Amino acid sequence: VRWPRWPAPTALAAALAELRVNSGGAAYEVRVGPGLVQAVGRWVRERAGGARVLVVCDHNTVMVAGQRIADDSGAAILELEPGERTKSFEELRALCLAMADAGLERRSIVVAVGGGVVGDLTGTAAAIYLRGIRLVQVPTTLLAMVDSSIGGKVGVNLPAGKNLVGAFKAPEAVFADTGLLAGLPEREFRSGLAEVIKSGLIADAGLTAMLTDRREEVLARDAAVLEAVVARTCAVKVGVVNRDATEVGERAILNYGHTFGHALEAASGYAAGLTHGMAVAAGMAVAGRVGASVGVTPPEVVEVQQRQLEDYGLPQRAPVAVAAMDLLGALGRDKKAAAGRVRWVLLEAVGHATWGHEVPDEVVGEAVAWGLGGNPVI
Amino acid sequence: VRWPRWPAPTALAAALAELRVNSGGAAYEVRVGPGLVQAVGRWVRERAGGARVLVVCDHNTVMVAGQRIADDSGAAILELEPGERTKSFEELRALCLAMADAGLERRSIVVAVGGGVVGDLTGTAAAIYLRGIRLVQVPTTLLAMVDSSIGGKVGVNLPAGKNLVGAFKAPEAVFADTGLLAGLPEREFRSGLAEVIKSGLIADAGLTAMLTDRREEVLARDAAVLEAVVARTCAVKVGVVNRDATEVGERAILNYGHTFGHALEAASGYAAGLTHGMAVAAGMAVAGRVGASVGVTPPEVVEVQQRQLEDYGLPQRAPVAVAAMDLLGALGRDKKAAAGRVRWVLLEAVGHATWGHEVPDEVVGEAVAWGLGGNPVI
Repeated sequence: VRWPRWPAPTALAAALAELRVNSGGAAYEVRVGPGLVQAVGRWVRERAGGARVLVVCDHNTVMVAGQRIADDSGAAILELEPGERTKSFEELRALCLAMADAGLERRSIVVAVGGGVVGDLTGTAAAIYLRGIRLVQVPTTLLAMVDSSIGGKVGVNLPAGKNLVGAFKAPEAVFADTGLLAGLPEREFRSGLAEVIKSGLIADAGLTAMLTDRREEVLARDAAVLEAVVARTCAVKVGVVNRDATEVGERAILNYGHTFGHALEAASGYAAGLTHGMAVAAGMAVAGRVGASVGVTPPEVVEVQQRQLEDYGLPQRAPVAVAAMDLLGALGRDKKAAAGRVRWVLLEAVGHATWGHEVPDEVVGEAVAWGLGGNPVI
Repeated sequence: VRWPRWPAPTALAAALAELRVNSGGAAYEVRVGPGLVQAVGRWVRERAGGARVLVVCDHNTVMVAGQRIADDSGAAILELEPGERTKSFEELRALCLAMADAGLERRSIVVAVGGGVVGDLTGTAAAIYLRGIRLVQVPTTLLAMVDSSIGGKVGVNLPAGKNLVGAFKAPEAVFADTGLLAGLPEREFRSGLAEVIKSGLIADAGLTAMLTDRREEVLARDAAVLEAVVARTCAVKVGVVNRDATEVGERAILNYGHTFGHALEAASGYAAGLTHGMAVAAGMAVAGRVGASVGVTPPEVVEVQQRQLEDYGLPQRAPVAVAAMDLLGALGRDKKAAAGRVRWVLLEAVGHATWGHEVPDEVVGEAVAWGLGGNPVI
């Protein structure tokens, strides 16, 4: 595998620090860099033009960013319970009622300060409250910075499945303050790295090379390297989203590793020990095996992927025990299924994924059994 | 006041029976005519292309249309409780869960067969389930045919207000079977007529003339006249919506009579004795008085309006007793308020409304007191 050269991190970060989304009729900037939180509140106050503002955060993000942004923007502040259970229909209703209580009107801005849970719940509420009010995303986790805050996909969970309800809700801006990553728990940081690794593999071989060459600086959270990695990963998502806003085509490649990953999360009952990143890592491993079996993914590409997962301490198979039957059942309920058939995203090369692959059941069965650690598929 | 001539009902109906919405990126047909219900099921089956279909109706509409459409399209069928209380967040959640149970996927079609409650709840669910699935509207009441089924505005109520949550969700088609109007309870028929009268006053003087000239045939529900009246009223809404999809401008005129009307409904606690049409009729009367006070609406235009309300047995003032304080409070919470100030839609002539009028508090107070039957505003 040959990788292109990549520029020095600082120069790259400067070039990429402002990314412009232009997708599905919406246009907004993704700003990446350390210390942005200090500027968000004033920016929001100016943009609101006198309309009321609400900052939504959780117990973890109120101190590092939420309170500061609320103070600077003159906003009311609302704290959610951290954790995936907050991404429920009941909490969505409560948030809409809180928006009414706060006197939000159509021109009001709601600022989501947190990880994927805060961003998704707040984004969904911003999409439906008064049929849509203005939204600013301030992601505070690596996963939210490089993935969930960009592209407008928001959602909440139902007992029948994750993100079964939601919207495409473009924010007015995304502020990814990479300075916040220094304080992130290791577990959450690694979880985000799985999406970073994925982004390189599907669309940016230079990013994959960067992650290999700069492994130690990334894991030590070197500020300049991290800024470059985040900006470059955001650029992958912005590029894909600009070409396909509503996932009719290319956007599907962002789901690389997510077919098995989502099914693993569902089949494990969203076990507390399994982060989204761990599930996606295991999902990439399974997709690599599927791709190799059907002759789409060259063996050396699978090798690069597996080495990178290992380098970053991410699972190369499912890290939790689930029954194969449960997993295959969850696969069938995948919301991207067309007429009941799962379509796979597969790598053709490092930096190039393709989508829509139909795969024979026996290939899926073998790869799933392998991904679950060799348990036979019943 | 001079009215333009209008063509014979049948010729007009033929010309207008297919109306094309082209608004906010969506394009769909509104079909108007008797007996359409017999064709909807086959149309849906063909369009679904093998994807699952769900028909949502209520106890009243299942027999007259829902079952037939479900049979013809091979759809699952779901019956809701009739009534405004069904338009809640809790029912929205239940409907989304039912969609998951029915195995609906992204290409699935959900068919809303009913009045505004069924159309709004089902439309909102179709907007958010899997971030949006396909929707067909089959309005069965006059109000739903001429108003709520067209233009994509859907919503549900919160304790803090009506339609506080919702979406812009364009259907794939609207089928308004005017044959269903023969069986509509008189009270619901009259309620719909208020929106018909409103449509003439704000945008189509010929419709106003038709309603005056053909009053007896309309009230006797003559099939040909009714088809012409419904088609012409739909044409008003389609025209406005095509020029302004998301209510940044002209679409506001559709809310003529709704500022006071909505506040009256809210302040009365959505009293069972007060239909939406009665509230809008009283709201038009109040708006006429406001318009005359500020010199926007000529007295003879107010006269035409009040005579038409009388002709069709609609209220010319609030038909229920509410406290003026409660009503003014509800006015202030109007979701179209910009920075806390209510903007009024006022008639400048028969067939021509303008929007965005700021009105002095004392004028509003006087008109509200009059509209409430002379109770003093405290």
